Amino acid sequence: MSALPACSDEVAFADWSAAVAARVEIALARTLPDEELAPQRLHQAMRYAVLGAGKRVRPLLVHAAGQLCKAPVAALDSAACAVELIHAYSLVHDDMPCMDDDALRRGKPTVHIAYGEALAMLVGDALQALAFESLCGAGAQGASAASTVRMCAELARAAGSTGMAGGQAIDLASVGLQLDRESLEDMHRRKTGAMLTASVRLGAWCGDPLDAARQAALERYAAAIGLAFQVVDDILDVEGDAGTLGKSAGKDALNDKPTYVSVIGLEASRDLARGLRDDAYAACDTLGAGAQRLHQIARLIVERKS
Amino acid sequence: MSALPACSDEVAFADWSAAVAARVEIALARTLPDEELAPQRLHQAMRYAVLGAGKRVRPLLVHAAGQLCKAPVAALDSAACAVELIHAYSLVHDDMPCMDDDALRRGKPTVHIAYGEALAMLVGDALQALAFESLCGAGAQGASAASTVRMCAELARAAGSTGMAGGQAIDLASVGLQLDRESLEDMHRRKTGAMLTASVRLGAWCGDPLDAARQAALERYAAAIGLAFQVVDDILDVEGDAGTLGKSAGKDALNDKPTYVSVIGLEASRDLARGLRDDAYAACDTLGAGAQRLHQIARLIVERKS
Repeated sequence: MSALPACSDEVAFADWSAAVAARVEIALARTLPDEELAPQRLHQAMRYAVLGAGKRVRPLLVHAAGQLCKAPVAALDSAACAVELIHAYSLVHDDMPCMDDDALRRGKPTVHIAYGEALAMLVGDALQALAFESLCGAGAQGASAASTVRMCAELARAAGSTGMAGGQAIDLASVGLQLDRESLEDMHRRKTGAMLTASVRLGAWCGDPLDAARQAALERYAAAIGLAFQVVDDILDVEGDAGTLGKSAGKDALNDKPTYVSVIGLEASRDLARGLRDDAYAACDTLGAGAQRLHQIARLIVERKS
Repeated sequence: MSALPACSDEVAFADWSAAVAARVEIALARTLPDEELAPQRLHQAMRYAVLGAGKRVRPLLVHAAGQLCKAPVAALDSAACAVELIHAYSLVHDDMPCMDDDALRRGKPTVHIAYGEALAMLVGDALQALAFESLCGAGAQGASAASTVRMCAELARAAGSTGMAGGQAIDLASVGLQLDRESLEDMHRRKTGAMLTASVRLGAWCGDPLDAARQAALERYAAAIGLAFQVVDDILDVEGDAGTLGKSAGKDALNDKPTYVSVIGLEASRDLARGLRDDAYAACDTLGAGAQRLHQIARLIVERKS
């Protein structure tokens, strides 16, 4: 596995993020059971769901926060795999007919289209378990046992009923409703924000503890980008096309789901995204040395086109 | 929470197991988020799926193995909740239309009947996450951080693609097939055996380490009861009725699934179950002092009527 470029102005963000994505791809390919191992079809479908596509935003956050805290890079790989596996499982279940009923994801047929509904459910279930197995491996890669327990508890909380799964339950219940802005923000802080925040925290917890002021700044950063990500998703769902997005566009409106665009309008959504990006930048200023990659990820999240 | 009766011949197994079940019920009720906490309907459905029913065999195994290893009882409660939450999530997903399509479980409508398919999927997903959150709590209850990491890794492995979820994938693929006995055993060792074995291990790992001979005996015990449980399940599916079982009887034959009864016959299945029980008894003899409850659970598993 290639070493990561050091954090310096000379190394462009594109190079660094490509190097992290490549490392994480290798780590995911090693963490996922081989297709030849029984049950083969389940393992084949798990690899199909995870490998070869995806923006890997969560792994980038893990590595960027880990760089800030001088964490061992192998421990960050374990944590990065864990958050990406949770993300991948949530997409598999989310796409199923009883949820969003989507046929296209990352430019490919969704897992239940390719492998059937029953196996898709098991793929999601098994990927969630694998996320925790991967995270436990961080302990063997330089993170302390106490940090590893703390990380497992955080991952479980972020993925669970008051985090991501809870956000999806609120999302389900909100179809056809006109949510107010506060309720919409609450839903998104759970559905997307909790796992993005967890990615930042896990990366940091693999390394040296921050002082209280920098810890608070890191939390502000995570809160800002966690919400910004979803606001931009809502904008892209209106503005994007399936070719760029790699998934169906306009599906929120089609599914009659409240979004930032439907609740506060397109221009106000754009202003909000930029404001959250600036909050994240301000937090990075407080974090100081080592926060360059976090700063660049905030820009990526707000300025992305897919 | 009431103290557990000490392990002695004077305290009948029925009293001990009722006391453990009562402790675990209280611990589960505290671990599951309150129904008043948002998202309320998800939390209501999670509690519906877990509380008030179930044989609690896995929690009994955790406490019995923990007693053998003089483990702190509060740590055992965390581990017992974890294995029971994994079990409960697997039932919720297993009952769904794309899997076994069952309407009755533990004498009540299944979760997807009561709350809809989409929420049932999220209930299962969130219960799996909660299991890991609960297990991480064992660290605060007297288990070491290193033991807690080891337990999380074991729970993840047992629940995952080479354990329970993998066994279910093999089960799905075996509908209508005539499996040989070896393949049937492999399927069941994953589908049911892995989590029963994990229950025994987690209980033991909350306490003092065993010497190598007793560790090996505990593994033999776990392997024997793990398989016995499924053999008896297959027998009860033929012999039982829905009123006693609290679930639909005869569903394996109806679903054209291979079982011990269909592969080796009813009498040979009964002999196998008794033989596995005797293996478990022999392991308990090697374990010696403190293994009384494990011995009694082996009898319970083989002689149960539901």
